[in-house]
Amino acid sequence: MRTHSSLVALADLDETQPELIAALRSGIDAKTKPLGALGRLEDLAVRIGTVLGQQRPELVDPQVVVCAGDHGVAVHGVSAYPPEVTAQMVATFLSGGAAVSVLAAQHGLSLTVVDCGVRGELPPHPRLLERSLGPGTADALSGPAMTPLQCARAVAAGRELIRGLPGNVVLLGEMGIGNTSSAALLAACLLGLPVEALVGRVTGVDDAGLAHKTTVLRQVQAVHADATEPSDVLARVGGFEIATLVGATIEAAAQRRVVVLDGFIGTVAALVAERIAPRVVQRCIAAHVSTEPGHTIVLQALGLTPLLRLDLRLGEGSGAALAWPLLESACRVLRDMATFEQAGVSGADG
Amino acid sequence: MRTHSSLVALADLDETQPELIAALRSGIDAKTKPLGALGRLEDLAVRIGTVLGQQRPELVDPQVVVCAGDHGVAVHGVSAYPPEVTAQMVATFLSGGAAVSVLAAQHGLSLTVVDCGVRGELPPHPRLLERSLGPGTADALSGPAMTPLQCARAVAAGRELIRGLPGNVVLLGEMGIGNTSSAALLAACLLGLPVEALVGRVTGVDDAGLAHKTTVLRQVQAVHADATEPSDVLARVGGFEIATLVGATIEAAAQRRVVVLDGFIGTVAALVAERIAPRVVQRCIAAHVSTEPGHTIVLQALGLTPLLRLDLRLGEGSGAALAWPLLESACRVLRDMATFEQAGVSGADG
Repeated sequence: MRTHSSLVALADLDETQPELIAALRSGIDAKTKPLGALGRLEDLAVRIGTVLGQQRPELVDPQVVVCAGDHGVAVHGVSAYPPEVTAQMVATFLSGGAAVSVLAAQHGLSLTVVDCGVRGELPPHPRLLERSLGPGTADALSGPAMTPLQCARAVAAGRELIRGLPGNVVLLGEMGIGNTSSAALLAACLLGLPVEALVGRVTGVDDAGLAHKTTVLRQVQAVHADATEPSDVLARVGGFEIATLVGATIEAAAQRRVVVLDGFIGTVAALVAERIAPRVVQRCIAAHVSTEPGHTIVLQALGLTPLLRLDLRLGEGSGAALAWPLLESACRVLRDMATFEQAGVSGADG
Repeated sequence: MRTHSSLVALADLDETQPELIAALRSGIDAKTKPLGALGRLEDLAVRIGTVLGQQRPELVDPQVVVCAGDHGVAVHGVSAYPPEVTAQMVATFLSGGAAVSVLAAQHGLSLTVVDCGVRGELPPHPRLLERSLGPGTADALSGPAMTPLQCARAVAAGRELIRGLPGNVVLLGEMGIGNTSSAALLAACLLGLPVEALVGRVTGVDDAGLAHKTTVLRQVQAVHADATEPSDVLARVGGFEIATLVGATIEAAAQRRVVVLDGFIGTVAALVAERIAPRVVQRCIAAHVSTEPGHTIVLQALGLTPLLRLDLRLGEGSGAALAWPLLESACRVLRDMATFEQAGVSGADG
């Protein structure tokens, strides 16, 4: 399996658009407020404008995409929840009862759920995309989680599904019992870290469970110690939903859509995407940082500063949906605030 | 001037409502998510439910109230902006061009601006409340900023204006050139700290300006070193808009409205309110922490943890408006998410 670099041609935003960035910065500086007084909201406005290539950025038809898949490694008891919860939660996303459903409804975000490879039956639903590559991945402790072909198909499915969605901004979420294990392994392999540095207790794992999870993941990392090429690492220790997110991230970035990252798993998918198609991260916004220790490490590796720090550790895209109004606020401030001149307000002395 | 304690009777929420708090907590624990996975959003939901006395909390008709006033101490050049900016910004709030106007429009928040004592002419406007106690306060370097009567009237005006507004949640903002100086002095006097510990460069003050501001404020603090009683401190070094905010905070809390604090000045007003009417702070939610060093100190003194950390330093209620969707999200999660039982989702092992 080769990298996907040939498929994407991402211009370096900061390198190629100095005039746009300067125009955005002077646009925000002219508003009736002291220089920099809106803090990180100003940087966010400039970033969104840069991604969209718009001096008056407008986010259109935001899409929440939740990719779901099961993980073979879950047989080793690395999660507090049984694997059937993945399918049960997909049904809950679609019926409107999950956190991400409630938050998407609050903010008028379209929600699409993608079956990337969930174990068990999923009844058809208008908002469920069927892109399954199998009933969960294979057990990464005894071999690769995915074949190279499965992995490539999952990445391609992620790219294709973005092409089928409207709008210029995507909020990427995921669901998959065992997928923090997969994400920790991916990040450990790509960043050259021992997996235990990236493992947390995430959704309800206790002390004994954490020790067990760490032991299992150390063994999996040892099995795949020779993997270094990003697509190979993805196939060996990744997951169907993570590979689909990698494709979705690459495609959205290539189309100059704003990519809103949610938690640890989605941020690791962005790390894989960045290694496959450098500069993807320039189109990404980190919605939040979770309590999962690996999330902080991967965000730092990507040079991303999260918008929210609310000790979330749910996934689903819930953190991305919670951060959404800040993106909208950033654009509105840049579009709708009066300038000092328009408002007839005196500037600072000196 | 006496304290206002006799005017308010605030029950201790945590002491008197253990059953409600337990019901809120078990309500959120039953939702289809791992225990605690929504982090601080869960605490926020419990807090709002406790303030409102509702197991399924619903925030109704949110009101942004921006109190504006000028400060005699501004003659000493403690701000980078001239005093006429206060009146100019009031006009900008009302014409829709200010940050808080744009953010209030985004979220459907009603906006009321209160002239508590602005220098200069303010043309009448349907959303401008005229509660002026004079053309700015007196210079606190040469005597009390307000007379005890002015101060009491400003507090009473704050209480009265809340009674005239609908809804069960208020977002309190302010505008006043020089009011970070007043807020720093209030906090220093009430917390027994040297004022320089609370002074920052806030809205565009440079190094020389900061040194000058610190020197002036040290002198003011020395003039009023004998003031300890909260209402006396408020009259001596406060401001018309701050005293009005104190009254608004006390009244909103007494009515069991949720009080959303914005920046340094509003948080200092809450500190004064808490000293006058203990337990007010239990009805307060800190929207954000600004770059102003005093803000962190006062939030800690009040035991409040801010929702956002976005390096804002604008005031106006802009940070409160930015945090608003998180309050709404917290309530919706508690009201609208399915329980494990409703969704037929398996729980955690053990």
